[in-house]
Amino acid sequence: MKAIGEQAMLYDFYGELLTPRQRQIYEEVVFEDLSLGEIAGEQGISRQGVHDLVKRCDRILEGYEEKLKLVEKFKASRKMVEEIVRLTEQFKASPQMSLIDRIGQIAQDIISL
Amino acid sequence: MKAIGEQAMLYDFYGELLTPRQRQIYEEVVFEDLSLGEIAGEQGISRQGVHDLVKRCDRILEGYEEKLKLVEKFKASRKMVEEIVRLTEQFKASPQMSLIDRIGQIAQDIISL
Repeated sequence: MKAIGEQAMLYDFYGELLTPRQRQIYEEVVFEDLSLGEIAGEQGISRQGVHDLVKRCDRILEGYEEKLKLVEKFKASRKMVEEIVRLTEQFKASPQMSLIDRIGQIAQDIISL
Repeated sequence: MKAIGEQAMLYDFYGELLTPRQRQIYEEVVFEDLSLGEIAGEQGISRQGVHDLVKRCDRILEGYEEKLKLVEKFKASRKMVEEIVRLTEQFKASPQMSLIDRIGQIAQDIISL
């Protein structure tokens, strides 16, 4: 099973490309943490069927990421934005013009990502 | 026909979800600006066929954006990053601590997008 943060991020980016039924069951298993047994009963499918559906959804979401790499780009960009936040704090603690240059440079780098 | 910038951005985000053949023809029409006649001859389809393929690709790309809104989010985020670049320049011209606060705030806002 993928780490929940990674899985949540893939779902956040590409979940709308799943069918409504896939989304419902996926959310119940992955985010609401209902038991496979409960969902199986509710959906009229086997526990194995629920398990397989979630696995299939994971593969679909990963397939989109392999092609589009949007989560990867988003993570890279967020890391840089977090660095900007950190540098503004550092500047307030100890103002040095070089920090401003770094902020400007990081912002430029984000634009060129 | 969509504005080229918008079309290019949709293609940049979602183009990998088209088939290789769709991508080839789409790029030739939209980015390399080859004539429909040339491409039609090369692909052994009618000019109308080329035209329809491009239109269909546009609809596919727009369909992904309607569901995922990733271009929309990207544009909002880029605008804010550009504002950070502008504020660092402004700070260098006339250092005011309030500019640093705004940079930090904008960076936080990007993270919460």
